[in-house]
Amino acid sequence: MQRVTLPAKAIPKKWYNLAADLPVEFPEYSQPEDGNQLENLPKIFSSGVLKQEMSQKRYIKIPKKIRKIYKKVGRPSPLYRAKGLEKYLDTPAKIFYKREDMSPTGSHKFNTAIAQAYYAKKDKAKMLTTETGAGQWGSALSLACNMMNIGCRVYMVRVSFQQKPYRKTIMQLYNGEILPSPSDKTEFGRKILSEEPDHPGTLGIAISEAIEDALKDDKIYYSLGSVLNHVMLHQTVIGQETKKQLSMIDAEPDIMVGCVGGGSNFAGAVFPFIKDQIDGNINCKFIAAEPNSCPTLTQGEYRYDFGDTAGMTPLIKMYTLGHDFVPPAIHTGGLRYHGMAPLVALLAHEKMIEARSVTQTEIFKSGKLFADVEGVVPAPETCHAIKVGIDEAIKCRKENEKKNIIINFSGHGLLDLQGYDDYLEGKLV
Amino acid sequence: MQRVTLPAKAIPKKWYNLAADLPVEFPEYSQPEDGNQLENLPKIFSSGVLKQEMSQKRYIKIPKKIRKIYKKVGRPSPLYRAKGLEKYLDTPAKIFYKREDMSPTGSHKFNTAIAQAYYAKKDKAKMLTTETGAGQWGSALSLACNMMNIGCRVYMVRVSFQQKPYRKTIMQLYNGEILPSPSDKTEFGRKILSEEPDHPGTLGIAISEAIEDALKDDKIYYSLGSVLNHVMLHQTVIGQETKKQLSMIDAEPDIMVGCVGGGSNFAGAVFPFIKDQIDGNINCKFIAAEPNSCPTLTQGEYRYDFGDTAGMTPLIKMYTLGHDFVPPAIHTGGLRYHGMAPLVALLAHEKMIEARSVTQTEIFKSGKLFADVEGVVPAPETCHAIKVGIDEAIKCRKENEKKNIIINFSGHGLLDLQGYDDYLEGKLV
Repeated sequence: MQRVTLPAKAIPKKWYNLAADLPVEFPEYSQPEDGNQLENLPKIFSSGVLKQEMSQKRYIKIPKKIRKIYKKVGRPSPLYRAKGLEKYLDTPAKIFYKREDMSPTGSHKFNTAIAQAYYAKKDKAKMLTTETGAGQWGSALSLACNMMNIGCRVYMVRVSFQQKPYRKTIMQLYNGEILPSPSDKTEFGRKILSEEPDHPGTLGIAISEAIEDALKDDKIYYSLGSVLNHVMLHQTVIGQETKKQLSMIDAEPDIMVGCVGGGSNFAGAVFPFIKDQIDGNINCKFIAAEPNSCPTLTQGEYRYDFGDTAGMTPLIKMYTLGHDFVPPAIHTGGLRYHGMAPLVALLAHEKMIEARSVTQTEIFKSGKLFADVEGVVPAPETCHAIKVGIDEAIKCRKENEKKNIIINFSGHGLLDLQGYDDYLEGKLV
Repeated sequence: MQRVTLPAKAIPKKWYNLAADLPVEFPEYSQPEDGNQLENLPKIFSSGVLKQEMSQKRYIKIPKKIRKIYKKVGRPSPLYRAKGLEKYLDTPAKIFYKREDMSPTGSHKFNTAIAQAYYAKKDKAKMLTTETGAGQWGSALSLACNMMNIGCRVYMVRVSFQQKPYRKTIMQLYNGEILPSPSDKTEFGRKILSEEPDHPGTLGIAISEAIEDALKDDKIYYSLGSVLNHVMLHQTVIGQETKKQLSMIDAEPDIMVGCVGGGSNFAGAVFPFIKDQIDGNINCKFIAAEPNSCPTLTQGEYRYDFGDTAGMTPLIKMYTLGHDFVPPAIHTGGLRYHGMAPLVALLAHEKMIEARSVTQTEIFKSGKLFADVEGVVPAPETCHAIKVGIDEAIKCRKENEKKNIIINFSGHGLLDLQGYDDYLEGKLV
C-alpha cells in the first residue's frame, strides 16, 4: 500500500466542530471597555459563518453545493505512505502524508475558501475582502469567489507581493483584485504608510485593511483564511477523510504533525482525532510545527489580544507575540502571524497538543530530502511539519518503535521555488 | 458527473503499439550513404527501448515496477467534464479533459520518463542524458532517474534556461544536472558557440549534445522525451485510461484534441482510439494543435530528415521544417521542435488526423478563460489544445450538435506564469 484513495461519495457530509468536545470552556471573544468590535461582527462576516463561529453543535451539515465543488477540486484527497522517506531514514515507523496540495491552488486553503464564499453569496454580498501572506490563501479565495460569482479583493503583505509576483498572476487569472499592503486604499494603510513609506507589511496590517473595507460597505464581507473557529471547522474534512483512510488499512495514528501559522491546516487534520483521543479510543501525540522566527506557540503568551494590528477584531484568547509584532521576512509567508487559532491555543494550553519550532535552513533541508525520496516538492510551510515528522521517525529508529506518523502535507512548493533556490545556492539566512 | 476516476487496479497492464495497426507500412529509419547513425543506435539507447522502437507487437507488457510507480504518481489520472466551459460557451457539446497535470512534475512526460529510466537501469547505465525545452521533460526525467537511482544530465535550450530559472531548481531538487545548451561540454556545443556565442539554442541542438555524450561513454544512454515510437508507446496509458472512463459513462468520442510539439501527448491520448476508428467502432475527428510560429504539421514537408541539428539521429520520415530551423522564442518552449513523431506524421499524411495552428495570443486567451471557468491553470502548450477544443465547441453550438469533445490536458501552467503575466499586461507579441 503506497496510496489510499476514497471514492467521491466518501467526501464528509458534515464538518466536525471541536467546540462541542472541549475539556474546558471556550474563552468567549471580548472587547475593550470602549470598544464595539463584537457589535461589528455581523457587519464583517456573513450570517452563515458567524453562526458557525459561535456554534456548540458537534456536527454541522456541509451544503450539497459545497460537497459538489469539493469533488470538483479533487476531494477526497489521497493519503500517501512515504516509503521512500522511511527507507532513507531506516526507521521502523510508518510515515503517511495527506495530500492537500492537489487542489487547483495547491493547498488546503480552498476547503474553507469555498465555504466562506458560499455563505457570503447566500447573504447577497457582492465581494469578499481578505489578507494573504505567501498567497496561498489569496489564490484559494479568488478561485472560490470566482466560482460563486462574487468579487474578491486581496490585501497581500507587501514583502510577499514583491517576492512572489506569480501568486498575483494566479489571483488575476481567477479575477481577484490584488493590492500590496499597507495600501493607500484604506485609512489604516495610509496611516502606516505615512509613518513608514517602505513598511514591509504584516498579516495583521493586511487583516485590518480588509476589515476596514467590510465595515464601510454592507455589501462587502471580510474573509479570514485561518485562526477563527469556523475556518478550523471547514478544514475538518481533512482529518475526517484521513480517519477513514487509516481505518481502511487498519492503522491508528501514534503521532500527527502539521505546520501552524494561524493553525487551520493543523486543526483540520487533527481535530477529528482529538475527539477520539478524548474518548479514549486512540493514544496519539499531536505536534504543531512553527518557524522559530515567529514562535507563537513556543514563545508567545496565552492571553487576550487582537487578531489584527489596528484592533478591529474582538479580543481573542490565544497565544500571541503581540498584535504589533513584525516577523522577519522569511520565505514561509504563510506562517508569519502573531497569533494562533484560539481552539489550537486552548489545546496547547491544556497540554493536549505539543508545539515545536524549527529553523528556516532545517525546513528547506527537509523539503529537499522529501522531494528527493518522495518526488513531491513541499511548500516551505509544509516543510515545517515534514521536519518534525522526520525527527519523530528518527526517534522511532533509535527506540525501535513501529509507530504510525501522519504528516499533513498542506501544500506544494511549485510557487515557492526561490526559497529552494536560495537554499541550494547556500544563500539562506 | 463532473469527474470520472478509476481505481489503481485500472492502470493499464500493457502499452498499445500503433505500429501493429498501421494502414500503410511504417517508413523505416534510414541513414545517409556514408552515415553510421543506424549502427550507433545501440550505443545511444538501452536495449529495452530499442526493442520497443522496432516492435510490431500490438501490446507490450508494462513491467510491474513501472505500474507501481504509475500508481505512486497518481495514475490513473481523472477525466473531468468541463461544465463551466460548456456553460460559458453555451454549447450543446460535452467537453471533457484528461488531467495529465496531476503528476509530481505537472505533465504527461513522466509516463515515458520512468519507463526509459527503468530500461536504462536494467542495462546497468549510470546516467541518462537528454534535452529539454520548457523544462517539463527535463524535470520528469530527473525525477524518474532519481527514482531508479541513476544520474540525469539535461541540456536545456538556453533561452528557456534563462526564462525559466525555477524549472532548473526543480531538476536540482531531483538531483538532475542542468546545462544551458549550446554548452561548452560537447564538441557540437562548442562549435555552435564559436560561430554564435549568444545562440538562443534549439531542441535540435540540445538533442545533438545529449547524443554526443551517449556516443562517447557506454555507461551513458540518451533519452528522448517525444518523437520516437517507444515514447508514443509509453504514453498510451493516457488513451487507454480515457477509453475506460468514457465507457463508464457510456460516451464515445466525436472529437479528440491534443497539442503537438514532438507529438507524444497527442499520440498517447489518441492512438488507442485510432485503433477503434480503424476497426470501425467509432467515428471520431482527431485534431493536433500546434503553434503557428512552429507549424510543423500544417506547413512542414513530409520527407526524411534528421531528428537533431548535428545529424546524429537516423533519418526519420516525418513532417519537418528542416533540422536547422530556429523557431522564435515563444513561451511554449515545449512545442518548439522542427520535426514530428513519424507515427503522428504518417497519420497526418494518410489524413487520419487533422492539424491546426493557433497564435500565441489566442492560446493565452483560451488559458485565461479555462482558468476562469474551470479553476485549473493550463500550461501554454496545453492551451493550444484548449483553443481548438473551444473552436469545435462553438461550431457545435452553431450547428446544434451534441458532440463529445475530449481535450488532453497535458500539463499545468504553474511554472509558466510569466507568459500569462505578459498576456494580462498586454505585453505579448
